[in-house]
Amino acid sequence: MQYLAIRAAIHIASAFALYLSVAMLIPAAVDAYYGNDDWRVFAFSSFFTGGLALAVSMATQGRQPPISSRFGFLVVNLLWFTACLVGAVPLLAASVELGLADAVFESVSGVTATGATVIVGLDGLPPGLLLWRSILQWIGGLGVIALGLFILPFLNVGGVSYFKIESSDIEDRPFDRFSTFAYSLFGIYAVLTLACAISYAAAGMTTFDALNHALTTTATAGFSTHDASMGFYADNAAILWVSTLFMFLGALPFSILILFVLRGRLDALRDPQIRVFAGYVVVFVIVVAIYLRVVDERPFFDALTHSAFNFVSIITTTGYASEDYGAWGPFALAAAFVAMFLGGCSGSTTGGIKAYRFLILFELLANGLRRFVYPNTVLTVRYGDRPVDDDLQRAVVLYMSAFLVIWAVIILMLAATGLDLITAVSAALSALTNVGPGLGPVVGPAGSFAPLSDTAKWIMALAMLLGRLEILTVLVIFTPVFWGR
Amino acid sequence: MQYLAIRAAIHIASAFALYLSVAMLIPAAVDAYYGNDDWRVFAFSSFFTGGLALAVSMATQGRQPPISSRFGFLVVNLLWFTACLVGAVPLLAASVELGLADAVFESVSGVTATGATVIVGLDGLPPGLLLWRSILQWIGGLGVIALGLFILPFLNVGGVSYFKIESSDIEDRPFDRFSTFAYSLFGIYAVLTLACAISYAAAGMTTFDALNHALTTTATAGFSTHDASMGFYADNAAILWVSTLFMFLGALPFSILILFVLRGRLDALRDPQIRVFAGYVVVFVIVVAIYLRVVDERPFFDALTHSAFNFVSIITTTGYASEDYGAWGPFALAAAFVAMFLGGCSGSTTGGIKAYRFLILFELLANGLRRFVYPNTVLTVRYGDRPVDDDLQRAVVLYMSAFLVIWAVIILMLAATGLDLITAVSAALSALTNVGPGLGPVVGPAGSFAPLSDTAKWIMALAMLLGRLEILTVLVIFTPVFWGR
Repeated sequence: MQYLAIRAAIHIASAFALYLSVAMLIPAAVDAYYGNDDWRVFAFSSFFTGGLALAVSMATQGRQPPISSRFGFLVVNLLWFTACLVGAVPLLAASVELGLADAVFESVSGVTATGATVIVGLDGLPPGLLLWRSILQWIGGLGVIALGLFILPFLNVGGVSYFKIESSDIEDRPFDRFSTFAYSLFGIYAVLTLACAISYAAAGMTTFDALNHALTTTATAGFSTHDASMGFYADNAAILWVSTLFMFLGALPFSILILFVLRGRLDALRDPQIRVFAGYVVVFVIVVAIYLRVVDERPFFDALTHSAFNFVSIITTTGYASEDYGAWGPFALAAAFVAMFLGGCSGSTTGGIKAYRFLILFELLANGLRRFVYPNTVLTVRYGDRPVDDDLQRAVVLYMSAFLVIWAVIILMLAATGLDLITAVSAALSALTNVGPGLGPVVGPAGSFAPLSDTAKWIMALAMLLGRLEILTVLVIFTPVFWGR
Repeated sequence: MQYLAIRAAIHIASAFALYLSVAMLIPAAVDAYYGNDDWRVFAFSSFFTGGLALAVSMATQGRQPPISSRFGFLVVNLLWFTACLVGAVPLLAASVELGLADAVFESVSGVTATGATVIVGLDGLPPGLLLWRSILQWIGGLGVIALGLFILPFLNVGGVSYFKIESSDIEDRPFDRFSTFAYSLFGIYAVLTLACAISYAAAGMTTFDALNHALTTTATAGFSTHDASMGFYADNAAILWVSTLFMFLGALPFSILILFVLRGRLDALRDPQIRVFAGYVVVFVIVVAIYLRVVDERPFFDALTHSAFNFVSIITTTGYASEDYGAWGPFALAAAFVAMFLGGCSGSTTGGIKAYRFLILFELLANGLRRFVYPNTVLTVRYGDRPVDDDLQRAVVLYMSAFLVIWAVIILMLAATGLDLITAVSAALSALTNVGPGLGPVVGPAGSFAPLSDTAKWIMALAMLLGRLEILTVLVIFTPVFWGR
């Protein structure tokens, strides 16, 4: 790794930190408007991080390094790492008085759009702080889409990129610059958030709640302004269905919306991952709704509303809860456990294994079984109607292997801090897939991460970051070959 | 699938059933010797299944079908299925009065060398019945070694076969017939069992206990003659260490011992899977021993003895317990959970993912990370000093994917019968890896599978069989292409 590349990566990260420090002025303004003294915290944090970022940015100016995958990995890791640190600054300084581990945990959970929280007493928190948490998740969600659409496919870490395919496979090339996509993405993401906020307000939320929840719904992230999460609105079916709809939309590949806006065509809707994702969402929601109807004898519409809301929330890795689904009975609990692995589509705000990986794994499996019968047949792995190249197949397999091993390691580490098995297993899984809550009485939907030890919180922060960057992106930084030559 | 192949497969399975019916005469003789009336049950079962098997065998005589992988898969599935059914006959008829689900569960747990039991009151059971359970496991263990060494590698389902490699790679071909290997395997397996029995007796077991536990130790299977499992001998460190040693030996690739006996060379000891297997065994045993020493303040030798015994038991998928390790504290419990995935070596009696798969996955991962940095390098996946062919790489990946999906499905099915999450997750895992006991109060080392519903027992029986045949071997039977043309 050359000095030039490291310097340039730090330069980019510090420029990004500068943007974040400007974003801190929004909660400062809100706190000032509501007459809350915390506006000083945000103003100071903005001044402090902004100044530091500016200094670093100026000190690292210089010649651009040659574009290489190593440079790409370095920038991605550094950007997320910086955002997690910068995000923690106002949390550390705010009147709520979080310790270092708590502030970093909360910031990482925000930036990675996970949604696990260590703060108890959200309902009484200053508005600026609540908004800052929501803003972190919104920016984090946008970052993840950009990562999945524009960066990871080109680094061969995975993802189905229409933009990669478009540029080589299709004759007309309407996208000759990334900036076009990037601006469209930002615009669509902002419009979707606004639509969500308006719908929430129309369904009965206060403006402040509607705005905050819109920021964290579109990002499928899961921070709420209430300790009870969406349980605060458990009796308002309209709000729950609005939320369900926008979580679902946030889990779709944003490439589709970009293509629609730029080209007026919806043919990307044929993307097979959407069918797979919609398929497992429908199966889980319906089966659990029937279970709630039959076993808990709830009215069907009520059962369907809460099944849809909570399972779309888990599967899209949002992490809101309208009720303690941990108390819905053994089958629902096991379904929640399995649902935590799933995730949404590539190029969305969701985490987890994701539909396209299941699709490719299923193709690999079907082909493999066919080859057992006819060992000499050559079979292509297909994604819809196009063949999947070796790099993507390999990336899927690598991710799955790394996921299992890292999951086991995190479980052992969390258990070593004294957490019971259900807590350790589900918290590790929930962090790696960026869902948010785990299962069981401690970290389940009715619990909180607050009682965990600082060590456990640091481990969880690491796991959330690993999961967010699809594990491999982080692991590569720790190989000798990355730093060699 | 041709009529000829199906008939020939049934012929082979019925011939095997005939052998099993002859084996029933051993418990018959033992019961007769001890003056227990159950000798009639075994004699009748032997007569009944023997007659039926003979009739089917004669009715299906005829021309041999051409050797094909389809025929191989059919024979393997049918052999195990038949053994499970035949094994259940004396259990159904015996004085202990098991229902159909119980008898089949116990037989499947025996034949698949899993070791989960639904019988409470083992200490008071007639000797013939106890011996029959042990014999089923011993035969099952032998079958698994043969499967791993001689069959699955040639069907491309996986496994590291020295015999496959030997026949193509190395100049001198001392093995020109499989029968030589098969006889050596049988001889070595028998001698190892005898050595184990003598060691157990010398360490203080009764002759009957020594024989039974030798049969189920060498097979890393786990049935005991006591409800307390090896906890009956918890205070006899010599017995526990003898058991630990022979479980470890049973988890090594038998190809090594065959090569040693036939050639007098031990160079197969360099097989890298042995280092990986021994490596994770040592790490788990030492770390848990230290944990027991520090947290539970036990004397170090005592901590080491029980850590070694129970974790070698879990990792080798035997399933004995000397104590309720579920009560050793959260870290030990999580370690037991993770250890249930591991397994021993290819070509041994163990189940689970197994060391060679971890080795190949690790190589794939290391190569993949290197390729992220240098996308154009071509890297070979190596197993020790030889390259891993594409078929084996693919088989490892397919197994892992199928394992995860099937695990999730079994968890959901078990939870639907009303089992709690820990029970469902650990029982499904334990069945698929053929360990035996699960975790938690119901099916944990101090619990029993007896209280489970019949439905749950059928699901568990299916899972044990799937796990034993490395999942893919069974799945291929259910593809349309298998039965086509």
